[in-house]
Amino acid sequence: MKNFTFYNPTRIVFGQGTIAQVGAMARSYGSKVLLHYGGGSIKRNGIYDQVSRSLQQSGMTVIELGGVAPNPRLALVREGIELCRKEAVDIIIAVGGGSVIDSAKAIGFGVKLTEDEDIWDDYYMNTACSVRETLPVGVVLTIPAAGSESSISSVLTDWKNHIKRAVNCEALMPQFAIMDPETNYSLPAYQSACGAADILAHLMERYFTREQYNDLSDRFLEQAMRNVITYAPLVLKHPNEYRYRAELMWTGTLAHNGLLDRGRVGDWASHAIEHELSGQFDIAHGAGLTIVFPAWMKYVYHEHIDRFVQFACRVWDVSLTLDNKETIIEVAIDRLEAFFRSLGLPVRLSDAGIGNERIPQMVETAMIGRDSIGNLKQLVGTDIEKILKLAL
Amino acid sequence: MKNFTFYNPTRIVFGQGTIAQVGAMARSYGSKVLLHYGGGSIKRNGIYDQVSRSLQQSGMTVIELGGVAPNPRLALVREGIELCRKEAVDIIIAVGGGSVIDSAKAIGFGVKLTEDEDIWDDYYMNTACSVRETLPVGVVLTIPAAGSESSISSVLTDWKNHIKRAVNCEALMPQFAIMDPETNYSLPAYQSACGAADILAHLMERYFTREQYNDLSDRFLEQAMRNVITYAPLVLKHPNEYRYRAELMWTGTLAHNGLLDRGRVGDWASHAIEHELSGQFDIAHGAGLTIVFPAWMKYVYHEHIDRFVQFACRVWDVSLTLDNKETIIEVAIDRLEAFFRSLGLPVRLSDAGIGNERIPQMVETAMIGRDSIGNLKQLVGTDIEKILKLAL
Repeated sequence: MKNFTFYNPTRIVFGQGTIAQVGAMARSYGSKVLLHYGGGSIKRNGIYDQVSRSLQQSGMTVIELGGVAPNPRLALVREGIELCRKEAVDIIIAVGGGSVIDSAKAIGFGVKLTEDEDIWDDYYMNTACSVRETLPVGVVLTIPAAGSESSISSVLTDWKNHIKRAVNCEALMPQFAIMDPETNYSLPAYQSACGAADILAHLMERYFTREQYNDLSDRFLEQAMRNVITYAPLVLKHPNEYRYRAELMWTGTLAHNGLLDRGRVGDWASHAIEHELSGQFDIAHGAGLTIVFPAWMKYVYHEHIDRFVQFACRVWDVSLTLDNKETIIEVAIDRLEAFFRSLGLPVRLSDAGIGNERIPQMVETAMIGRDSIGNLKQLVGTDIEKILKLAL
Repeated sequence: MKNFTFYNPTRIVFGQGTIAQVGAMARSYGSKVLLHYGGGSIKRNGIYDQVSRSLQQSGMTVIELGGVAPNPRLALVREGIELCRKEAVDIIIAVGGGSVIDSAKAIGFGVKLTEDEDIWDDYYMNTACSVRETLPVGVVLTIPAAGSESSISSVLTDWKNHIKRAVNCEALMPQFAIMDPETNYSLPAYQSACGAADILAHLMERYFTREQYNDLSDRFLEQAMRNVITYAPLVLKHPNEYRYRAELMWTGTLAHNGLLDRGRVGDWASHAIEHELSGQFDIAHGAGLTIVFPAWMKYVYHEHIDRFVQFACRVWDVSLTLDNKETIIEVAIDRLEAFFRSLGLPVRLSDAGIGNERIPQMVETAMIGRDSIGNLKQLVGTDIEKILKLAL
């Protein structure tokens, strides 16, 4: 177990009817709020009205910036930074899922940069974190997936150059996150499925580590994975059942709030490769992950047999004698793929209508500014190419 | 799953060599520190020197108050409050286990009370929390057990009247906790065992709830219990093995930092009954719990069969057909008692040399200011008497 620091001060307010608290919680940071959201679904399902009413009842002046797209754009972030500066905004409230939250985080720290600092060049292209402070960000979470509601991460895409990058800094953790599982009832099934896949991927990235002797984290990760595997199909089957939505939503937060990888370094190669997929093709992040992860596993497991056998036995209940280790692992990967397919998600590039044409381009972009990606096995361009070909 | 709030801003710094950070961390709260500790073991094992050196190197003025006893005393707390006021202390550093930390927390909030407020009458005898602010408290943890290093709890004993009570408030969470598993190497085996029992008890209190549909918490609690059951015997067998100490220490924190009972109300009757035992006889809290918990289980399980069967199957691997539910549960309780005995801990009052003479007194004190104790089954005096008799 490596030495570690764990610090997560985000206040989580979880449950039915909790959105009514957003105004009072935001008000303690000032009187002017930027309400940041996506494509407008929150206007159709009533969440926009609930949030607006609460903010107004608390005497807040509301400035709006909607239009965050999945795989959020640098261009809109720059617009948000200007708006916050011009209006002297005190707090940003992100209403939505990971894309909206990541965009809000980027705006929040962009506002605090000096004139000669650029959010993209200085921060997103720089893996070492140097974010010192941000405008406070509060979250009303409507999609359990990215875990951004209490994480240190923000992912942005520069669409001009098809580059998608993450920045990870303690200062990026939101002040609070309001999580009402009822907001998830109206999610399209495909979006719920992609969210579940993203949560499972966050858990697997943390699970596949070279670190030994970090058993409590292993156990928690395994059980969080089992919870996703149990409740994601139930959510699709019973979309308005509170208890299933609640399980998935809470698992999504704990999958990514920093707790479950203390004492270890996770892998994160699959996320990096997926960023090339969604950076090139704008497919949903969750659907990109279900294509990449099984291929990554097939490529790397031979060198880390013990870890993959533990994954197979403790998560997927594979029960074969231990003289069949490679078979045990292959059965687990088959079960993972069957699980993803059962949620209606792609597990091959061809399932998403993607061929091999842009593989060289993805490999090239993935390596910009990096010597390698991934930690369980450090991958270079030729490895990434092989993994993408395994995913065809 | 009930609605909940989760908030825990304690910064955990975990690992070998981390005590050297205490000075820099304390310094950010001011220049005058109260160094609070117990009976002097930290002077023998070198931890006192490490902490003092770091504080002095950071330019802190150190005031000392040692002498905290197990089951910490109200009298010493009153002394600490006076000392902090007189010396205008900025931060309290607690070096020790739960008793020292609880005492430091009580001093910290006592300092902030007004002249006409009394820490005992107004706070400890009042179950509703009204602590508004405290002096900052930092922790150097040397005993994994109470979980007080990042919890909302502080337990004190009024020895004049043999009353032991807890107060639970968000404001009581320490600012930071430094946790070096190497500090545990020198713990006597009995103290390590009592600590492990306390951790397991914290997990069981949270596990035995009437709340349904809170599966992620169930799963995490079960695995944390399994981790204690796995690593406590290894710690006793290999006291200087870092990885076993580290597992137990980290599990102890997560058992009590508020995360694992979100969405539910735990039971806590066994803790309340144990407080009578250690309030009357001054036995170790952990050893009191290993006497009370099995007796409590035998008394209540008939009314909560499903919960106890899940505990038996998922924690103790009891594998019997489900038409033997009561037997399944009895086997689990047998295994729990055997586990405690294997650690050298008592499971009957007689093991601790305690007879039935003071049962009426314990029953009476337990009910002072309360209508009932416990949540899974709400217990009154006659129930407590029966449980204590089952423990004879």
